[in-house]
Parts: sequence; C-alpha cells; structure tokens
Amino acid sequence: MKVLVEGRRKHFRTVTFDAASNHVRLIEQRLLPHDFKIVGTRNFRETARAIRDMVVRGAGAIGATAAYGLAQGARAFRGRDLEKFEKHITLVFETLSAARPTAIDPLNAMSRLRVAMKAGETVAEKQSLALAAAEDFAREDVEHCAGIGRHGVKLIREGMRVLTHCNAGWLAFVDIGSATAPIYAAQAAGRNFHVFCDETRPRSQGATLTAWELCQQGVSHEVVADNAAGHLMQRGMIDLVIVGSDRVLGRTGEIANKIGTYTKAVLAKRHGIPFFVAIPLSTIDWELKSGNEIPIEEREEGEVLGAWGMSGGRRSYVRVANPGSRALNPGFDVTPTDLVSGIITPQGIYRPGELWKARGRLGARAKQ
Amino acid sequence: MKVLVEGRRKHFRTVTFDAASNHVRLIEQRLLPHDFKIVGTRNFRETARAIRDMVVRGAGAIGATAAYGLAQGARAFRGRDLEKFEKHITLVFETLSAARPTAIDPLNAMSRLRVAMKAGETVAEKQSLALAAAEDFAREDVEHCAGIGRHGVKLIREGMRVLTHCNAGWLAFVDIGSATAPIYAAQAAGRNFHVFCDETRPRSQGATLTAWELCQQGVSHEVVADNAAGHLMQRGMIDLVIVGSDRVLGRTGEIANKIGTYTKAVLAKRHGIPFFVAIPLSTIDWELKSGNEIPIEEREEGEVLGAWGMSGGRRSYVRVANPGSRALNPGFDVTPTDLVSGIITPQGIYRPGELWKARGRLGARAKQ
Repeated sequence: MKVLVEGRRKHFRTVTFDAASNHVRLIEQRLLPHDFKIVGTRNFRETARAIRDMVVRGAGAIGATAAYGLAQGARAFRGRDLEKFEKHITLVFETLSAARPTAIDPLNAMSRLRVAMKAGETVAEKQSLALAAAEDFAREDVEHCAGIGRHGVKLIREGMRVLTHCNAGWLAFVDIGSATAPIYAAQAAGRNFHVFCDETRPRSQGATLTAWELCQQGVSHEVVADNAAGHLMQRGMIDLVIVGSDRVLGRTGEIANKIGTYTKAVLAKRHGIPFFVAIPLSTIDWELKSGNEIPIEEREEGEVLGAWGMSGGRRSYVRVANPGSRALNPGFDVTPTDLVSGIITPQGIYRPGELWKARGRLGARAKQ
Repeated sequence: MKVLVEGRRKHFRTVTFDAASNHVRLIEQRLLPHDFKIVGTRNFRETARAIRDMVVRGAGAIGATAAYGLAQGARAFRGRDLEKFEKHITLVFETLSAARPTAIDPLNAMSRLRVAMKAGETVAEKQSLALAAAEDFAREDVEHCAGIGRHGVKLIREGMRVLTHCNAGWLAFVDIGSATAPIYAAQAAGRNFHVFCDETRPRSQGATLTAWELCQQGVSHEVVADNAAGHLMQRGMIDLVIVGSDRVLGRTGEIANKIGTYTKAVLAKRHGIPFFVAIPLSTIDWELKSGNEIPIEEREEGEVLGAWGMSGGRRSYVRVANPGSRALNPGFDVTPTDLVSGIITPQGIYRPGELWKARGRLGARAKQ
C-alpha cells in the first residue's frame, strides 16, 4: 500500500476510490488515534489484506471496501473474454469474502455489483457498471447512516449516559456511522449527554477509534474497561446502550457483533436498560436461519497476549501476558433477540422479530 | 524498597517478614511474569505504599502485608510511653487501612493484632505480641487456602473447563491461593481439566499473574479477553467459574471482587453455569449490612488508557487510548447473592445466605 495523505487537515471519508489509479483509498485505522494516514491499495489482493489486517474495519466501511475492491479487480482485468472475466470475478469475490467471514456487508455489497454487471454485454461495460454500483453502495451507506440518525435521535434524551461498544462510528462506515449516528444527531439537536466508550479489548477500537471520533466531534465521553459496564449499570450510571453490528439475521433478529457485545446485552437486560443495535440495510442477512450458522472469526492470539500503543513517540507492541501462555481469540459473538430492545435502521426502529415481516421494505433495498 | 532477591530459584511465599531488619518481604508482582524480584519495605509507610501501588495485591496477601506492616510499625516505635505507642499504632493502622479500601483482609488481620497486643503490659511485650499475631495470621492464611482446596476439589471433575477472573492464586495469598486451591488440588488428584484466565483489564492480573502461576504449575490454560466469556459460555465451552474475593459480607453473602467479576456472575447465571467464590475466613466482613456500603476504590485513569508489558526486552507502558480522552476506573464491583452458587471456605462450601447462620463456626475464627 502507498501512503497518500499524512496528517488530518479536513474531514475525510473512510473509504473512497480513485478511478484514475484504480486504487481503493483507506484511512489506516491501525495508526489512529496517534497518526492519521490515508493509504491506497493497488490491487484486489491488497484490498483483501487491508480488510483482514484491520487497516479498515467496521460493517459499512468493509462493505464499501469490498465493493470497490471488486470493481478494482474487475477493472484490472485485461482482455475481452467474458468467460475468463467471470472466473476472475469469482476469484476476486472469494478473496474479498474470506477476509472477514463474520461480516455480511462485503457479501451484500459485492452481490449488488455482480447483479449490476449482468446488464453489461462486454467486459468494458461490466467494468464500468461494477464501479458505478460500488459508488452507489458507498453513497447509500452514507444516506443510510443519516437515516439511522434521524430515527435514533429520539432515543438520546437530555442528560443521558450512553454506553457503546467497539467502534460503529464514521470510521466503521463510509461516513457518519451507525451507533454514532443518533449520537451526532442528538448533539446537533443541542442535547447534553455523556458517552462511555468500552475499551473493547483485544484491539481496543473503543479506546482508540470511538474515543478519537467523539473527541474530534466534541462529544462528552470517557473510556471504561470492558469489565466496568456491569458495575456502572448496577450503580445506575448507564441509561442506554447503542452498538453496531457486523451481521443481523433478517429471519431471526440475531446480532453478530464485536466480541463482548453479547455480554453488554445480557447486563443491560438484567438492569432493564434499553439495548439498541444500529445498522444500515446492507448489514441484514436474509439467508441464514440461525445465529449458530454465522462464522465466528478466530483471530491471532497476539492480540490478546499484548497491546499496541504509543511509547516514547513510537507505535509499539508490548507483550502483556505470561510468555509461556497461549490465548483463545474469538473476534465476534452473537446476541439473541430477547436481549435487543430495537434495531435502528434507515427505515425506522424495529423489534428484532419484526424484521422478517418488514422484509419487503427492508429486504428489497438490501438485495436490489 | 530494597531489592532482596532477583530471579526465581525456588518456591517463595508471597509475603514474609524479616525480624532482624524489620522488613516486610514481598514478591514485586508488577514485574511478573517478566521478572521475579523480592523487595523489602523498610517502614510501615513503604508497606502501605506497596499495597496502594500494587507491588502486592490479593486478599490474603495484603492481609498478611498489613499485619506485618502493623507489627513493623509497632516494632519501630522507640520509647516506653504506652499512650504515645497507642497513638502511633492508630496512625499505622489507618495508613495501612487506607491503602486498599475495598478489601477487608487488612482490617481483619490488623484487628487481630490489636486484640493480641492487649495482653501485653509494656511496649516491648506489645511489639512482640504484634509480630506473633502477624505470623499467626500468615500461617492461618496458608492453612485456610489448603482447606479451600480440600473442600473445593470435588467441584472440578475430569474434563472440565474452568473460568477464573483476576488472580486469586498463591500470589494473592501467602501461599496456595483461594480460587486456585481447588485447581491445584484437582491437579494433585490427577484430574485433567483446562482453565480459561480472564485477561482482567485494566491491570491484566489474569494474563500476567494467573497465567504465570498456572504455567509454573503445569496446569493447562489459555488467556481470553474479558469480552470473550459470554461467547464461550454460549458455545458450551465453560463448565465452572471460580473467583476469589476482596470482601464477602457475612450478613448478606454479597461479594466484592475485582471489576468484571459481577459481569461473569451475571453471564454464568444466564447459562446455568455454577459460579463459586473461594475465600479464607479473613475475607468475611461481619459488620456491613449491605454491599452498597462497601467502598469501591477509584483507581487512576492511566490504567485504562494504556497497558504495561515488555517491548524490546524492557518493561514499558504504551498509551493505547486517544490522547485527548479521559477514563473512569472503578477497581472493584459487588456481586449479589442470587448469582453465587456457593462460597468455598476452609470450613466447607456454603450458600451465600447460609454464612450468617454459620457465623459461630465461621465468624469466631475470623474475629478471634
């Protein structure tokens, strides 16, 4: 990957595409909050690696990255042979799909590209349609997040203390964010409230990315250890939980999200605290019949055994755990429907069990 | 503090006292698992600081440290004036009590010394009785942990997967440990089982201390992020939870322990997984009437905002969180009785509600 921008001078979209160079441009999220860089992936394999290695993460952001990655792969194809082109597209699709198996946004986004490409009769036409569909996905991702904000804003009332887990902010989408959309909308409406950011070990996206975003936006917030949520709820210090999701099952309402989400949902239920999940429509999976079928990515143990941060002005990894010990590192978990108060979508707020009934309204867009 | 021993050549007790130099000798737990050092505190203020700064931590270990610290303070007194001596003892008591307000072991241990000193008629006699009572507390702590092992061993059956939080191992006591006592006893009985060590942010005592202990003892184990427990329970991968405690209320059965314990108890309840708390009798508080009265120590935010570990052969702190963000860092939480399957004591296993009825048997020893 090439470094394209260093230092943050203005607001950037998390994921964009440069048609001239055929590069996907990404904010290098592993460097945040300590450094701001935009990097460019030169081919679809680099794009897949950027997803796998967490240069880019978050439902909508990897959806758009995969869409652009598929367009990038399509546009890099040389020749006019449609059969070879189709084979190549399948390879690109599978390479990008495998990079974050728990998420559905990349699959939904890339499926849209494949449908769109069918209208083309030549390789050149298909290449052009792929890019247009990717741009369309990215534009819609921003619109959906704005819609989540419009519907979710009413949940955040004056003086509330809101808990969020991991990062479902604008860094996790093309812009605005899902869980943060109601937060930014409530701020724009002049409401005062406070956000607790779960640290979100092992990769600390709450302490790094969400805290950075909220700091940039001037939202009152504090970082807490993942262990603290139960205590804070017990002491009446949390009024609302909002999280994002990597995959919501349209048939059952089950929610796959960053490891630890399920725990927060169980705690919220015990304390009668509303627990909401904010998603664009591209995060809904209309196929799977059970949360047990969602593949849970096992990530490398070094994430649990140590931590990345700044030391002496340099980005460093420290080994925290006992040197002779191993770790188990499931990256995601599944929250069942009985724990979820509502799902905030661009089309309104639904109870998890209502998604399937409303699939005409929600699904048509997701599968178009 | 002076460094007395470097490198671990044999098994050491966590806390001992050197009468000749009037030093409390402590394993420097902040350096583990990467370095093994024994340090000596030269006076009661250094001893209190060693507790506050986490050189030594864990219920029984800080109980013994406070007991030795009180004896150390008593023995440092020059003169024969009993009134001045009493005033000095009160100062020493209060200094050591304030070092870890959530814990009860230091208070119980030091109260025993004060009772024992009453039998002395001169300062010299009281000084001598204080040290004898401190040694008695330390000896009893080891016996109690052995007793916990004898009663708790039956809970760990062949093939079980056991979750533990923080460190309630031999490093948290004078020897053997509370939560680890059944584990070491089951190992001695030839049983095969596996332990998941919660990392236990923000100070990572699970990843550092418990993992190190289990590694030294050859117990099969893996470190997991605090966020992973819910997922593991949901997938049927945990059969039993055992934790220690910093204070158990004898009147109500409520459990104060390291932040995050309450969360694990709520999860265990939802999944029907037995949740046990292992304690010596010195951890029981017979006075307080409600868990809300237990003081919860707020620790400094740097613990949450970063992590300590090894980098390039050196012990380093990395700042993980966004530089402009603050943190909230409650060190402990309180688990209510409905979540606790049983309390493993040296006298047997009790349901939380049974402690008060059995106070004659349990309390007499705790207050003797």
